[in-house]
Amino acid sequence: MITLSSDFGSPYPAAMKGVLLQATDARLVDITHDFPRQDVRTAAFWLAEVLPYFPPAVHLVVVDPGVGTDREAVVVHAGEHALVGPDNGVLLPAARALSGEGRVDTVADSPVVFRLCDPTHAGSGDWPPDPDSATFHGRDVFAPAAARVHERGVGALATDPGLEDHDGYVDLRFPDPAAHESGATGEVLVVDGFGTAITNIPGDWLSDRVGTTVSVDGTEVPVRRSYAHVDPGTALVTVGSHGNVELAVNRGRGAAAFGVKAGSVVELGW
Amino acid sequence: MITLSSDFGSPYPAAMKGVLLQATDARLVDITHDFPRQDVRTAAFWLAEVLPYFPPAVHLVVVDPGVGTDREAVVVHAGEHALVGPDNGVLLPAARALSGEGRVDTVADSPVVFRLCDPTHAGSGDWPPDPDSATFHGRDVFAPAAARVHERGVGALATDPGLEDHDGYVDLRFPDPAAHESGATGEVLVVDGFGTAITNIPGDWLSDRVGTTVSVDGTEVPVRRSYAHVDPGTALVTVGSHGNVELAVNRGRGAAAFGVKAGSVVELGW
Amino acid sequence: MITLSSDFGSPYPAAMKGVLLQATDARLVDITHDFPRQDVRTAAFWLAEVLPYFPPAVHLVVVDPGVGTDREAVVVHAGEHALVGPDNGVLLPAARALSGEGRVDTVADSPVVFRLCDPTHAGSGDWPPDPDSATFHGRDVFAPAAARVHERGVGALATDPGLEDHDGYVDLRFPDPAAHESGATGEVLVVDGFGTAITNIPGDWLSDRVGTTVSVDGTEVPVRRSYAHVDPGTALVTVGSHGNVELAVNRGRGAAAFGVKAGSVVELGW
Repeated sequence: MITLSSDFGSPYPAAMKGVLLQATDARLVDITHDFPRQDVRTAAFWLAEVLPYFPPAVHLVVVDPGVGTDREAVVVHAGEHALVGPDNGVLLPAARALSGEGRVDTVADSPVVFRLCDPTHAGSGDWPPDPDSATFHGRDVFAPAAARVHERGVGALATDPGLEDHDGYVDLRFPDPAAHESGATGEVLVVDGFGTAITNIPGDWLSDRVGTTVSVDGTEVPVRRSYAHVDPGTALVTVGSHGNVELAVNRGRGAAAFGVKAGSVVELGW
Repeated sequence: MITLSSDFGSPYPAAMKGVLLQATDARLVDITHDFPRQDVRTAAFWLAEVLPYFPPAVHLVVVDPGVGTDREAVVVHAGEHALVGPDNGVLLPAARALSGEGRVDTVADSPVVFRLCDPTHAGSGDWPPDPDSATFHGRDVFAPAAARVHERGVGALATDPGLEDHDGYVDLRFPDPAAHESGATGEVLVVDGFGTAITNIPGDWLSDRVGTTVSVDGTEVPVRRSYAHVDPGTALVTVGSHGNVELAVNRGRGAAAFGVKAGSVVELGW
Repeated sequence: MITLSSDFGSPYPAAMKGVLLQATDARLVDITHDFPRQDVRTAAFWLAEVLPYFPPAVHLVVVDPGVGTDREAVVVHAGEHALVGPDNGVLLPAARALSGEGRVDTVADSPVVFRLCDPTHAGSGDWPPDPDSATFHGRDVFAPAAARVHERGVGALATDPGLEDHDGYVDLRFPDPAAHESGATGEVLVVDGFGTAITNIPGDWLSDRVGTTVSVDGTEVPVRRSYAHVDPGTALVTVGSHGNVELAVNRGRGAAAFGVKAGSVVELGW
């Protein structure tokens, strides 16, 4: 199975699918091609949320503002999964999630990052593929790499002569929230398609406050189990499906109502 | 085969696909994830139009403004198909269409509605799944249910210990049009992506009027076989692919030209 | 394998998928359903760019402003591929590309165009399908035709009694650029989803100018290997993944910055 994620919209992803289907019979599953353009951080957040729900797979990810520069192309080995994409950090939060990092019930193996290297060791001129196109590595570099990783198997990454260890990779970590005596300070990580603002504050910090109110940047707001527990148009604080505190409006757009966007600082008080 | 429909946009549907693919090798087919947000009625209309074109399948549908409340989760048995989703009426028009209700050439079996019940009868703690998440039942309740229905087979619904008969389900029916001596009174059901207003008036009420005109809310408009039978930018009345009367503009947006939207009353006169 | 392309948006393409899946187990791959509405020329450009990356397949294409008129429905045989759609030119640039026309390394076989004909020769009343619907030939004519072509095989097109040679088909060719002593005159063919203007000027006309500047409609602009070789917000000329000259802005929208749209004349000077 190969999943595809990008900020390409349409119709560029179809060219990647064609390249994949020339090389493999793998099932292809679109995650999305509508990530905000060249927004590495938002894509990284969603991939870390969504990819852990998948069975073992190769995940092709192309959100790549540095295309055509000398940034590396990388393959990350994470649990029974592999991720293929640009070396700009977009793969790392998902790779840590797929490795089980941060979960108390597993012994986590940290992700291992490789970079695509000179093909002369491979005995074949076509690996890594020659990036003739400087503007569409999704089609010309990453899709062939994903197909190759799929066909060889994730277990063969360490012995692939077309890959080298790459320790100096670009990492990306989301900021940690801070708990204090009378509340918490966090940050809006992303705003989803419903307009709900998703913060980095863990939901369990609110677990005994459902049914009460907390202050958000000084205003008292009800804490509820889900959106429909307040009237339509009413603001609330809830815990989203990712386990984080959300600022929402039932049948409305929370980020607008709270006046926040990705990166905004959020002060909760109790 | 499992089809997926929602109002989630992107990237939430991918999490549902991951859950399904953990549990089944079924072919997955997206109907759409772009239903208008939390618009149960519009989703119900389109599902009733589109799903009858499919071979036997399990249809996972999540348009669910009541997520996290005590509304039930239901499975509907309709012909050789099953539909899985929230108990808010969104499944019923499609279920009736899949059962053959209203078709003169079939003996219709009415849809049978089940609700997901307490798992203690099932001998397994994981059915129905525990809705840990109060905000994303698509991923945590409906996708596991759809996978289970697919793996057990539609014929096994009545004997599934995780399901109970559910007679008091929420139904949803579209209003009937009224014929009168010199015309018809109907209603706009939905406006499609081309901007065409689709009414509840049966197309065969116009069958001997193609090539003439009718009045729409008092204005004479040509009745034509298809859009391109009038000049670009010209309004027309035609019969759409669903068999209903449409208010359209060739290469334009009919709803805007006629000043109507979903729910508007339409008076046709002849 | 059957690919699907249209300007339908959502949810109409799902009805085509249902019809296909009733008739075939073929893998279905969406190219896009977001072509600009009824824009035959833009769809033709993208199909010619994308379809050559696919392995042998049947390509179902529905961008059809003439639906319901007497325009023909056609099947085009191109190399190991077949294309199915309306006779309005949308299939022809892709068909030439799939046939290898214009490539120096292949002996091109020109595409062969058939039209769907009267079913009486076929010994079956259902081929070509009766276009009961005058407004949705994608579902009622082209999808059944694509399924049939797939099941019979591309090699059987010439002997299909449901098809006739169709010499008088509508062709569509993009304008040729003109080289002159101190520059080139071309045209913007399309603007992509990133806002980049793609011209008809071959990239190799700029091959020895990377790192210098050229004038675009009188203004000097840097020529670079890719977008990120200039600062964010800066305009550049580059060669896109299709091999043509592009007018772009790093992390911005080139067409807006250069004041051009599809059809605009572009003067390059050196």
